[in-house]
Amino acid sequence: SRSISLAVIPGDGIGQEVVAQGLKVLTAVLPQDVKLETKQYDLGAARWHATGETLTDAELEQLQQHDAILLGAIGDPSVPSGVLERGLLLKLRFAFDHFVNLRPSKLFPNTGTPLAGRPDIDFVVVREGTEGPYVGNGGSIRTGTPAEVANEVSVNTAYGVERVVRDAYERAQARPRKKLTLVHKNNVLVHAGHLWKNLFDKIGEEYPEVATDYLHVDAATIFLVTDPARFDVIVTDNLFGDILTDLAAAVTGGIGLAASGNINPTGEFPSMFEPVHGSAPDIAGTGKADPTATVLSVALLLRHLGYEAEAARVEDAVTADLAERPSARTTDETGDALAAAVSG
Amino acid sequence: SRSISLAVIPGDGIGQEVVAQGLKVLTAVLPQDVKLETKQYDLGAARWHATGETLTDAELEQLQQHDAILLGAIGDPSVPSGVLERGLLLKLRFAFDHFVNLRPSKLFPNTGTPLAGRPDIDFVVVREGTEGPYVGNGGSIRTGTPAEVANEVSVNTAYGVERVVRDAYERAQARPRKKLTLVHKNNVLVHAGHLWKNLFDKIGEEYPEVATDYLHVDAATIFLVTDPARFDVIVTDNLFGDILTDLAAAVTGGIGLAASGNINPTGEFPSMFEPVHGSAPDIAGTGKADPTATVLSVALLLRHLGYEAEAARVEDAVTADLAERPSARTTDETGDALAAAVSG
Ligand SMILES: CC(C)[C@H](C(=O)O)[C@@H](O)C(=O)O
Ligand SMILES: CC(C)[C@H](C(=O)O)[C@@H](O)C(=O)O
Repeated sequence: SRSISLAVIPGDGIGQEVVAQGLKVLTAVLPQDVKLETKQYDLGAARWHATGETLTDAELEQLQQHDAILLGAIGDPSVPSGVLERGLLLKLRFAFDHFVNLRPSKLFPNTGTPLAGRPDIDFVVVREGTEGPYVGNGGSIRTGTPAEVANEVSVNTAYGVERVVRDAYERAQARPRKKLTLVHKNNVLVHAGHLWKNLFDKIGEEYPEVATDYLHVDAATIFLVTDPARFDVIVTDNLFGDILTDLAAAVTGGIGLAASGNINPTGEFPSMFEPVHGSAPDIAGTGKADPTATVLSVALLLRHLGYEAEAARVEDAVTADLAERPSARTTDETGDALAAAVSG
Repeated sequence: SRSISLAVIPGDGIGQEVVAQGLKVLTAVLPQDVKLETKQYDLGAARWHATGETLTDAELEQLQQHDAILLGAIGDPSVPSGVLERGLLLKLRFAFDHFVNLRPSKLFPNTGTPLAGRPDIDFVVVREGTEGPYVGNGGSIRTGTPAEVANEVSVNTAYGVERVVRDAYERAQARPRKKLTLVHKNNVLVHAGHLWKNLFDKIGEEYPEVATDYLHVDAATIFLVTDPARFDVIVTDNLFGDILTDLAAAVTGGIGLAASGNINPTGEFPSMFEPVHGSAPDIAGTGKADPTATVLSVALLLRHLGYEAEAARVEDAVTADLAERPSARTTDETGDALAAAVSG
């Protein structure tokens, strides 16, 4: 009989509430013969305040034993900026070599988009997850004085770029439109940009069916609001991917629907699934948080673990639910409705 | 009697065409007693192909003698990416210490915005112009091999951040809403981010009337499409400013209207005014280019040189023209219409 060992990191703010709904839906959709074992990890702001720890080596080792990780949200105004982000969220992404940060963007029926004319949006961003300006290779001297210099180094390797670009070509190849757009800023960041562009072009020779395109990141933001339908698969660096996927969420009806998977495609480490949104401390505990992004992240998790039919069932349930969702529904009610919709 | 000595760099593609209209309007709006002397500099793709030069030291010295610079657009697909951007455009911005890259965003009447509901947009981005990831402190090793490493260093100094943040506070203070938003990514780029945030908070104490706000760059892109009316003055780093101002142009009806000034507020060096758009080689020579962004950049130039009434006249002419602009008009016709509107 089959089984899934899942690590659950609810985290901060609305993280707790949305993860509960994600688990509800996961439990409801899994076939009877699949044994789901979950283990909750107490990480985030409260833990840091209590112990000063963000993520211990022992926890990292335990987490590694699971098949996958479901994460809610990390971050709280009571903690200095960067402490939990670098010490917990990014530590997980780097330690578990999540080099594909997968972020689909789709305009669901009946959802609000700030764009006039409701364009037909359905693309996926493959954001590099282990390099770029996120590596933490920065520092400052004479800190806090008028002579301070603070540097941040973006590190990019052929090793790191090739594997994520290849992954993006594979995904583009498997989609009906077979189109891949590289987004960078190779007219200014010439060294990193040329590495990306050269590998993009070279690997593209192995995928003659995939149509390719290059855009500077500034131009890409323009097209995301004027013509988002032009995109199919986008591959980009860690920081540009961070920016573009929030923008993509905004044009497709809001960050409440944006799912993501931090994927280690080799399977050496557990992949981690989380909504793109943050911990939203202002609405935590009010029952107003929309758990849909977490539920859609559960669909990505199911697909990653090989439960394709179940993943599709979750996505179809979300689509159907959004088409007739009552406006005033609590986090819990939305979770219940989706769980009911997916269960046999 | 007064005089203006203006350096003109038409550059590539539509640069030539739009700069011609900018000069038309400038000539028409200036009072009779102001002597306008222009000198054209032959820089850009054609020059590089002919001589291999992007900008010589002698030219830099000559350019420095002018009161201001009007630039069209730089860049051509026949030149490797980065050559003209780094060797000409950014070289000018850095050599002339253009630390305030000023980019107003306004939704003009009757212009198309991709946003539903036509929000009331009127803000200005103060983009740092001489630091950040634009400094050119990058490099690669083992270039072109599977072991390549390419780094890009973002350099940020208290000296550089303080002066641009102070400029932004002054601008916010002088505007009716008196609101200043810092955009950075201080939860990931912790060293640069903390330098920016600390100086932003500290200098803010000198401007008690200015309401302040901080947003991560990813969140800022969301608000730019869901609630752009919330912004008054934004101050941000060089790269984030590049991205946000293209996005801002997109939501306010297109890059065809976005003006910019690369300003050296101390007056030690000439400031440089240019449309935010690029050289658009695909429409060069067709008469389709909209010269409005260049004309609005001329307004910024006039204001910088102390011709406030003339600057306002140009802006009013653009507003009036946009309200009843016929859809099919050539670059030249638009320039003529605006020149006629501002003269006499
Ligand atoms: C919280 C933050 C560190 C994170 C990031 O920048 O990657 C978030 O914005 C995201 O997109 O998942
Ligand atoms: C052409 C390029 C170097 C430039 C920049 O990145 O600053 C442009 O995008 C701009 O915004 O003026």
